[in-house]
Amino acid sequence: MNTWKIEQVGKKPKLDNPILIEGLPGIGNVGKVAIDFLIDELKAEKLFEISSYSFPHSVFVNEHNLVELPVVEVFYKKFKGKRQDLLLLSGDVQPTDEVSSYEFSEKILDLIASFKGKEVITLGGIGLGEVPKKPIVYCTGSSSKIVKKYKSKLVNDKLYGVVGPIVGVSGLLVGLAKKKKMEGIAFLAETYGHPMYLGIKGAREILKVLDNSLGLKINMKRLDKEIKEIEQDMMKKTDQLSEVSKQTALKKLKSKLGSEVDYIG
Amino acid sequence: MNTWKIEQVGKKPKLDNPILIEGLPGIGNVGKVAIDFLIDELKAEKLFEISSYSFPHSVFVNEHNLVELPVVEVFYKKFKGKRQDLLLLSGDVQPTDEVSSYEFSEKILDLIASFKGKEVITLGGIGLGEVPKKPIVYCTGSSSKIVKKYKSKLVNDKLYGVVGPIVGVSGLLVGLAKKKKMEGIAFLAETYGHPMYLGIKGAREILKVLDNSLGLKINMKRLDKEIKEIEQDMMKKTDQLSEVSKQTALKKLKSKLGSEVDYIG
Amino acid sequence: MNTWKIEQVGKKPKLDNPILIEGLPGIGNVGKVAIDFLIDELKAEKLFEISSYSFPHSVFVNEHNLVELPVVEVFYKKFKGKRQDLLLLSGDVQPTDEVSSYEFSEKILDLIASFKGKEVITLGGIGLGEVPKKPIVYCTGSSSKIVKKYKSKLVNDKLYGVVGPIVGVSGLLVGLAKKKKMEGIAFLAETYGHPMYLGIKGAREILKVLDNSLGLKINMKRLDKEIKEIEQDMMKKTDQLSEVSKQTALKKLKSKLGSEVDYIG
Amino acid sequence: MNTWKIEQVGKKPKLDNPILIEGLPGIGNVGKVAIDFLIDELKAEKLFEISSYSFPHSVFVNEHNLVELPVVEVFYKKFKGKRQDLLLLSGDVQPTDEVSSYEFSEKILDLIASFKGKEVITLGGIGLGEVPKKPIVYCTGSSSKIVKKYKSKLVNDKLYGVVGPIVGVSGLLVGLAKKKKMEGIAFLAETYGHPMYLGIKGAREILKVLDNSLGLKINMKRLDKEIKEIEQDMMKKTDQLSEVSKQTALKKLKSKLGSEVDYIG
Repeated sequence: MNTWKIEQVGKKPKLDNPILIEGLPGIGNVGKVAIDFLIDELKAEKLFEISSYSFPHSVFVNEHNLVELPVVEVFYKKFKGKRQDLLLLSGDVQPTDEVSSYEFSEKILDLIASFKGKEVITLGGIGLGEVPKKPIVYCTGSSSKIVKKYKSKLVNDKLYGVVGPIVGVSGLLVGLAKKKKMEGIAFLAETYGHPMYLGIKGAREILKVLDNSLGLKINMKRLDKEIKEIEQDMMKKTDQLSEVSKQTALKKLKSKLGSEVDYIG
Repeated sequence: MNTWKIEQVGKKPKLDNPILIEGLPGIGNVGKVAIDFLIDELKAEKLFEISSYSFPHSVFVNEHNLVELPVVEVFYKKFKGKRQDLLLLSGDVQPTDEVSSYEFSEKILDLIASFKGKEVITLGGIGLGEVPKKPIVYCTGSSSKIVKKYKSKLVNDKLYGVVGPIVGVSGLLVGLAKKKKMEGIAFLAETYGHPMYLGIKGAREILKVLDNSLGLKINMKRLDKEIKEIEQDMMKKTDQLSEVSKQTALKKLKSKLGSEVDYIG
Repeated sequence: MNTWKIEQVGKKPKLDNPILIEGLPGIGNVGKVAIDFLIDELKAEKLFEISSYSFPHSVFVNEHNLVELPVVEVFYKKFKGKRQDLLLLSGDVQPTDEVSSYEFSEKILDLIASFKGKEVITLGGIGLGEVPKKPIVYCTGSSSKIVKKYKSKLVNDKLYGVVGPIVGVSGLLVGLAKKKKMEGIAFLAETYGHPMYLGIKGAREILKVLDNSLGLKINMKRLDKEIKEIEQDMMKKTDQLSEVSKQTALKKLKSKLGSEVDYIG
Repeated sequence: MNTWKIEQVGKKPKLDNPILIEGLPGIGNVGKVAIDFLIDELKAEKLFEISSYSFPHSVFVNEHNLVELPVVEVFYKKFKGKRQDLLLLSGDVQPTDEVSSYEFSEKILDLIASFKGKEVITLGGIGLGEVPKKPIVYCTGSSSKIVKKYKSKLVNDKLYGVVGPIVGVSGLLVGLAKKKKMEGIAFLAETYGHPMYLGIKGAREILKVLDNSLGLKINMKRLDKEIKEIEQDMMKKTDQLSEVSKQTALKKLKSKLGSEVDYIG
């Protein structure tokens, strides 16, 4: 299905061999939280808007009470000096089915290749049964070469047996990178596997890893201040939400069963 | 998706303005039971075999312990004298999704039109909460003209409010007939809405309706004898099956939940 | 999938810069109830019939006991004097999946554009845990300009945080309008989120909003009389239905589990 | 959807009328366990790697902590003397939907035909309610000719009534073989139908059947030693897994219900 639209926003910059970092929604939204902070912190500029008929057929209401289509965006950050330039992939959604997930991932790798980039970093979460005190960051990659490159005290590379399959774009980008003679690495931080839980702490640990590996000079104090604010907000909301959702969920279940009554073949 | 294969078996007969009667699997398999008896009783000859990539991706083991792909078949019966010739549509399966259900129904109507036929009769069941003593046969059609044509003491034409939507090919053939300037009528017999229950009694009532309307001279005694035999067989099987299925169902449910453990995004 | 059929019914009128109002099935059928009353009240004329292979593969039995395919219809109303002409979108169904929901919404916007129209209004419901005494009507739009245009005492424009994503055509029409340099606004009325509940009261509040904004001169007395009649009817039906559906639902659940027994890989 | 990629690995050997044996994941992974042992035991060489956009959109972490895309592989074994050469089909996954399951199966049959092969053997499991002491191996085929060819004391050919439909590639390869004027036979071993249970004992019985029919000279002692080791490993794991999965499953269920809260139409 030829339903992908990639719109360029502004001028295409000259980037030299950039690394793309991906953080789409997933468990605990760990990847999304990390990439959105990074885009903000680095003052990265928007380069592409990607929309698709295979994204969810729904819209969001934003803080200005206006409607927004689900969108995935690519930002870039050009550094002076030795640091490698970055492309940053953030979005409201993931592609919803197998075929579009593969198609999307290939398009992103082609986009990196169009800037002569050869490396992709993906960010995600590992859902635990309880809130981790200090989330461990695991990594896995397309080759032992890239795993060695990013290995440090901050990262555990013994992921085998810890998780099942890595589902979605975070997994496919690394898997398909190898096929395209690129390199890929995934950083996955532990988080609480509850759908209401936002994996900020996991995102923080991932940001420390990226900061250390790529020399990003992230202002960790600012990050920690933001984390405190978000956590206080969330504690209030969660109380309300969990009550509402329990009731609505039961209603939903009942109505699903009820709505299948009376069919004829 | 261009996945329909219609293979002609034997020579194409000359049929004059035939009526097609459809009986695919559905509630209580009422339509399938009726059409299969009719094909047998009328010694109808096979004309087409229809297979499709959008049929279920599974095979059956037949009574000779050999594998059979799911197939839909069209038979024909040429009558001498005044009676209209018949096309009879029987099958192992229904198309599984919206698009293929529409595509299939259009292909069948085109097939009728290729013989200059202008009428389609579809057979199905209405699932009740208990076994009906004497199943009522309801009808609904593409126009009041065809409903009048088939109205009799044996048929109740007040279907409105009795059922919800008519799902699948039995409904679409009648609905699409109108668009193609053909006529369609659906006969739906009451049956017990339990998945293990075979709607033979409902099928019997439908066969009486068809016999009466189309002058088919069906041997009802043979039918009743067959019904008795099947019912005795089924009573034995049902006892065993219901016990097995209850246990397996629980296991299935548990395993479905269990197999979704440990995903990462 | 090229499965959309838009048939014109009668002559195409000259409309000057019309607004399209959409009311397809959804939560409480609020939008559908409102648009159907409006079409009736304004004596709007049918202009297009839209059918699709991606609509549900089922037919309805209407009050004349005849079969009807699911259809979406576009009506129009030409006004004398200053009032803007209207296109009114009503239907039995919504497209069932992501891709067809996007495709459908784009086709509707193209249709508006073909009349040089630049504005779309969508109607829907917000499901609450209980029956609202006086349903609030919220709005959200493609730009602050259109939200300002329709803001009044009757409408609350603080939707952010009140609802999650707006799913389906009601959301996409507004979201995609922006991309096509058109304007869109959604009016969403509170209703009871029970599948058996018809959101007539919410529809009433939306009609008041439309009446006020567009100067439609709706006969609210007639509407209130109709509402009373429908409510009395429903109270009788609901009692029966809820009992039936509870029993059938349990049976359905059991049979679903049972039918998955015995698969081999 | 044109999403199949078949990559040749190494030189294409000259095979004379080879038989292809399939063992993809399924109930108890009986087929996969058998084929993977066989590939190892025969020191078969890899010939093709098959990937597809319709495979699950996820990756695995292997024992070297590296990412691997789901892949299906074809190996071959050339024998000296009278024994027929073999193609061996193994993989991480099955195609996920109807259309791709048919497409895949046709591609495999075409691949056999490209080597002038005319026979396919598929391996699978029959899920029982308890662990079988000595699993029975059943067979069914595309014709009585091939069933006779493989009948022995080790195989029961009375499968009719024992199982429902054979779902997936194991069934389709045999069913479609007939259409392509090839022969196919399926060997299905009893196993415990629990999702955590690995059907090694069933796989052992199937290997004995293949050894006997094809004269493979399998080292059954080595197999039995391996089985013992795996079983001891599994007993430890199962205890842990079942506890984890029970808890996570409940959480998953709750979150699924919870995540459907607050939709608007």
